[in-house]
Amino acid sequence: MRVSVLEEVFSANDQLAESNRRRLDEAGVFGVNLMASPGAGKTSLITRTIEPLRGEVRIAAVDGDIATTLDADRIAAFGVPTVQINTGGACHLDAAMLQRALSKLDLNHLALLIVENVGNLVCPAAFKLGMHRSVLIASVPEGDDKPYKYPVMYRGVNALVLNKMDVLAAFDFDVQYFRRGVEALNPGLAFFPMSCKTGEGLDLWLAWRRAERKRGGT
Amino acid sequence: MRVSVLEEVFSANDQLAESNRRRLDEAGVFGVNLMASPGAGKTSLITRTIEPLRGEVRIAAVDGDIATTLDADRIAAFGVPTVQINTGGACHLDAAMLQRALSKLDLNHLALLIVENVGNLVCPAAFKLGMHRSVLIASVPEGDDKPYKYPVMYRGVNALVLNKMDVLAAFDFDVQYFRRGVEALNPGLAFFPMSCKTGEGLDLWLAWRRAERKRGGT
Repeated sequence: MRVSVLEEVFSANDQLAESNRRRLDEAGVFGVNLMASPGAGKTSLITRTIEPLRGEVRIAAVDGDIATTLDADRIAAFGVPTVQINTGGACHLDAAMLQRALSKLDLNHLALLIVENVGNLVCPAAFKLGMHRSVLIASVPEGDDKPYKYPVMYRGVNALVLNKMDVLAAFDFDVQYFRRGVEALNPGLAFFPMSCKTGEGLDLWLAWRRAERKRGGT
Repeated sequence: MRVSVLEEVFSANDQLAESNRRRLDEAGVFGVNLMASPGAGKTSLITRTIEPLRGEVRIAAVDGDIATTLDADRIAAFGVPTVQINTGGACHLDAAMLQRALSKLDLNHLALLIVENVGNLVCPAAFKLGMHRSVLIASVPEGDDKPYKYPVMYRGVNALVLNKMDVLAAFDFDVQYFRRGVEALNPGLAFFPMSCKTGEGLDLWLAWRRAERKRGGT
């Protein structure tokens, strides 16, 4: 009984995700779903990405949080349209929430949409939103064992950022052990060691983003 | 429809949680549910707690993870009975999982049971397990805004550990802002700034654990 209800939920979500994707494709918008643990640096990566790109392309952000508009406020301060989704307790965004957010944006005047999912390494991996790429942000203080412990999340993404590299020396983090775990789950995954604080590694990430958007068929 | 199914799930879980609590009470075992983000230091706090207490009381641990036995192995290395629950994808422990774990332990020979929940600041807060106390571990690198963003979790716990205080200087973490958020949600919450790495602050935490176990009626 419980399983069949869940299957219905996922199947309904998948259909809505496809419809979201069609709306983005028709408007020529490239969508990115950003996922991470709480505090790994999702909002920092978004503001670091918006800052240099906003002169090139029209960007908007959708920000998912259980409560508060703290992150949306930080992003909106960069002068891009930002839609806040307060999930009211739900531990992930789903395609229906994103559908409502899309209707608040003028998609025909956008080229890039960045979605900040709820801080969680489990549930967001199970709910498609209809975006073109999924990106995971790991961070050094979380520990090098996370790929081994959260395989579904690591398996399902198109790129991996390892944030907070500026504090690597202060933690027992074995980058090789971390990468071996990632490679076993998702061979050849695009990998970007980075510090959103110092800006280290940001150039390679931005180059990838530009290339993927062109490749994305938008 | 979906809501009524969820209500049934929660109500069934609450009943099982009460039954778990009765089993612990009858055996004189004090149960603690430990929750945190991925990588905040749950396993480190458990091993730091077991090390000095194992001479005083008989301890066991239940370790919940999506995948792997990495954490359970670290805990079992301290010579205490450890039951691993692999949730197989579920983002939290529930009372039924704990019920199965309890039947693998010789409760009559235990005094303290520490349960390590899945790394997640959302879902574990919604599922009671039947423990006597709930403890949340925050950590400095996660950021000082977490109480504001995950209010349900912060509201529902009996004690709060702030781990990784040894790297405070490397992060923009305002301890006063963090505590104001905590106090607004959970006034007077027992608060333990700590470093599981250096051992700083561990003495106050252990004193609280001893006092609570006595007060817990076991």
